[in-house]
Amino acid sequence: MMKSCIYPGTFDPITNGHLDVIRRASNVFDKVIVAVALNESKTPYFDYHKRIELAKLATKDLLSVEVIGFDNLLVDFAKSQNINTVVRGLRAVSDFEYELQIGYANASLWSQFETVYFMPSLKNAFISSSIVRSVLRHNGDISSLVPKQVYQKIKEEYAN
Amino acid sequence: MMKSCIYPGTFDPITNGHLDVIRRASNVFDKVIVAVALNESKTPYFDYHKRIELAKLATKDLLSVEVIGFDNLLVDFAKSQNINTVVRGLRAVSDFEYELQIGYANASLWSQFETVYFMPSLKNAFISSSIVRSVLRHNGDISSLVPKQVYQKIKEEYAN
Amino acid sequence: MMKSCIYPGTFDPITNGHLDVIRRASNVFDKVIVAVALNESKTPYFDYHKRIELAKLATKDLLSVEVIGFDNLLVDFAKSQNINTVVRGLRAVSDFEYELQIGYANASLWSQFETVYFMPSLKNAFISSSIVRSVLRHNGDISSLVPKQVYQKIKEEYAN
Amino acid sequence: MMKSCIYPGTFDPITNGHLDVIRRASNVFDKVIVAVALNESKTPYFDYHKRIELAKLATKDLLSVEVIGFDNLLVDFAKSQNINTVVRGLRAVSDFEYELQIGYANASLWSQFETVYFMPSLKNAFISSSIVRSVLRHNGDISSLVPKQVYQKIKEEYAN
Amino acid sequence: MMKSCIYPGTFDPITNGHLDVIRRASNVFDKVIVAVALNESKTPYFDYHKRIELAKLATKDLLSVEVIGFDNLLVDFAKSQNINTVVRGLRAVSDFEYELQIGYANASLWSQFETVYFMPSLKNAFISSSIVRSVLRHNGDISSLVPKQVYQKIKEEYAN
Amino acid sequence: MMKSCIYPGTFDPITNGHLDVIRRASNVFDKVIVAVALNESKTPYFDYHKRIELAKLATKDLLSVEVIGFDNLLVDFAKSQNINTVVRGLRAVSDFEYELQIGYANASLWSQFETVYFMPSLKNAFISSSIVRSVLRHNGDISSLVPKQVYQKIKEEYAN
Repeated sequence: MMKSCIYPGTFDPITNGHLDVIRRASNVFDKVIVAVALNESKTPYFDYHKRIELAKLATKDLLSVEVIGFDNLLVDFAKSQNINTVVRGLRAVSDFEYELQIGYANASLWSQFETVYFMPSLKNAFISSSIVRSVLRHNGDISSLVPKQVYQKIKEEYAN
Repeated sequence: MMKSCIYPGTFDPITNGHLDVIRRASNVFDKVIVAVALNESKTPYFDYHKRIELAKLATKDLLSVEVIGFDNLLVDFAKSQNINTVVRGLRAVSDFEYELQIGYANASLWSQFETVYFMPSLKNAFISSSIVRSVLRHNGDISSLVPKQVYQKIKEEYAN
Repeated sequence: MMKSCIYPGTFDPITNGHLDVIRRASNVFDKVIVAVALNESKTPYFDYHKRIELAKLATKDLLSVEVIGFDNLLVDFAKSQNINTVVRGLRAVSDFEYELQIGYANASLWSQFETVYFMPSLKNAFISSSIVRSVLRHNGDISSLVPKQVYQKIKEEYAN
Repeated sequence: MMKSCIYPGTFDPITNGHLDVIRRASNVFDKVIVAVALNESKTPYFDYHKRIELAKLATKDLLSVEVIGFDNLLVDFAKSQNINTVVRGLRAVSDFEYELQIGYANASLWSQFETVYFMPSLKNAFISSSIVRSVLRHNGDISSLVPKQVYQKIKEEYAN
Repeated sequence: MMKSCIYPGTFDPITNGHLDVIRRASNVFDKVIVAVALNESKTPYFDYHKRIELAKLATKDLLSVEVIGFDNLLVDFAKSQNINTVVRGLRAVSDFEYELQIGYANASLWSQFETVYFMPSLKNAFISSSIVRSVLRHNGDISSLVPKQVYQKIKEEYAN
Repeated sequence: MMKSCIYPGTFDPITNGHLDVIRRASNVFDKVIVAVALNESKTPYFDYHKRIELAKLATKDLLSVEVIGFDNLLVDFAKSQNINTVVRGLRAVSDFEYELQIGYANASLWSQFETVYFMPSLKNAFISSSIVRSVLRHNGDISSLVPKQVYQKIKEEYAN
């Protein structure tokens, strides 16, 4: 039986930390859907379509990975995909608590909902999209923080 | 001597987690004042009057509970009510740290200020107003997350 | 209706942090039972009878407080006392997690079991019995860490 | 390709929390090896052979699960099994921190070492072997804490 | 060799907690640069120039302390000052996690970047700028929360 | 004025994480005293004299570092050395909480007591003496976990 999972997030933008988790998930699952949330309640740094484009660029060499945008409740999106397993990366303790809360809230909405957590390698464990955005705002160098293709795309489009 | 306490919050909206804490507090205290903060610094999902109305609906069968709105500093509100004990629910670790900070800050403003914490039952321990708002924004089902009367009221007014 | 609570612990020895919690609990409850656990699985610094004696000395001026030793499961002790409410002090985050685990474990053994947490004042928030024992082992001065009567008793009996 | 994982622990004794994680792991992996550590540095409540026996009893209906004892370093055991993925359950924050430390320590000993975390259902999230042992020591009722077969076995052998 | 450090923050406004850390840092370092971030991404309570003015008022008696505003990335500011050591205060656990993340992110941007943490005294450990702002919004008394000169300046300018 | 600090611990044995902190401290302080605690209350893996010997081996190239054993209360040892500043490394959140407790307890025993925290580099942030001892017990390879000289000494003496 094919085992699929969803890796949801805002991906504003996708980082080396995210890519690390995606690679680990694709070693365990036959298919990984990277699900980019529209997230209308906050104004993202990159718009919805750009965040999807960057996630696709970052994962284009990973054959079992597909990038899809979604703008409904995660549980409803998961049901629509017929997938009950969500993958999350754990970066730090505060992450974990939030994950726990979200995980149990989702399980209360769909009892079959399952969350599996991956631990990124140490060198990616402290990278977050908010750090990347902060460096971008001050024109710093993000080459060590995001996938190569993402770095190049952002540099081309925003550098001048 | 009658023992009273204040249970303050934004209640945007009141949830089963809040109601769980209110019930426990009313087993220990003779009177529980549910104090709904105006909270002008962020824009709530439900306005001040609706939040008070929903809190009243949720607690209308609890005789020792009264719902009051307030728009001053919690310590000043507590003094105006002649009550030095505040009740809080503990949901998760991050909660606790925030509570500790607020608790000691309040104690530094009023030395007699006392905070008593209740632990909700496990099934309510991961419900938060922000989860409820997120489900509402995506037209999901909140019937397992909020008191029955709140569910019906929201459904009547917003479901069309 | 009289409201009673149990404040359980090893009290090896009772500290100013414990006494702070006991005072707060006795402002809210009509009766506070300080329940000293025999705790056979670890070797305490002070033996069972000495720990009870020190707890009695520390609380002898608090009329609503009674000190009792117990050597069964806390839930069973609470049932035997006809009291379903346990009081705990919160000192630091690690405390809280442990408390949460114990609280939910107890609730799974007796569904009516209730835990209420008090926050000691800041100056007592970092005192623990293990700090006191460590200072005692090195003949340091514990006068700022334990109740006056406990300090004097320990000094009389151990200092020479 | 068959995907296997190791679920290591002391299992002193195996609980409903462990069984919950094992079930979840067996939904994702083709084979789950429950690896019972000899753990000579502390004296367990149940001896090595009894802990293995109870783990086998608890999992006997799960066809993809195998119980094996081990007394070497986890990384060396994993290499000997040709399996680089270890499964862990996350119960509470303190767990997570310890897991993170162990996970990174193991990864520093074997770079291909991978740790995947599962979240037990809420009703099992606060069960731990140490709670079970504490209840057993005081002759309390562990029927809600351990798998049915484990409960019966312990009752038969220890009750009288 | 002269040892210098940077103490960066938004200082909106500077509190007794900040001043506590500055005093401790100036006992260890020959020069302490209090670096006030412009922080364009959120709207501060006090504007950039007022925050600098208040920080200067609070530290005017400390000869080894200099207050400087900055609007670039902390790592770039530190390089421009030829100082690789940043000082931070630790107030509570959540702080620490955030600090750790920021610290490692900075170290990934400049490998020589060093962070040194000071622990404020207990009475200042729970003061934060956000608490001060909340008290100010409700016209509460901030005299126990901020340095005397800051209290007087704010009182003069805002009280009427 | 010369600035000195004490870096206390059990050092059972000294690890790359400790050495990382010592190097950072010696960049800030003119003298670093590595203070090895006798710690009679638990049985260490390496005895007192061996732990001192290994700490001396690990730091013999660092001219401003001195290794001293002590068997009294840290505060009393610090007073006897005329040094009021203690240095600690922060590895993970649980560490921090413990440090905070110890720090405030020490400050309550000696008001001038000061604690300064250093953050080890990421690659050393998850190394602990207990991990090293666990690897040693199972005859694993500790070469990536302890200083080179410590590795060689332990290998010579224990390998056969």
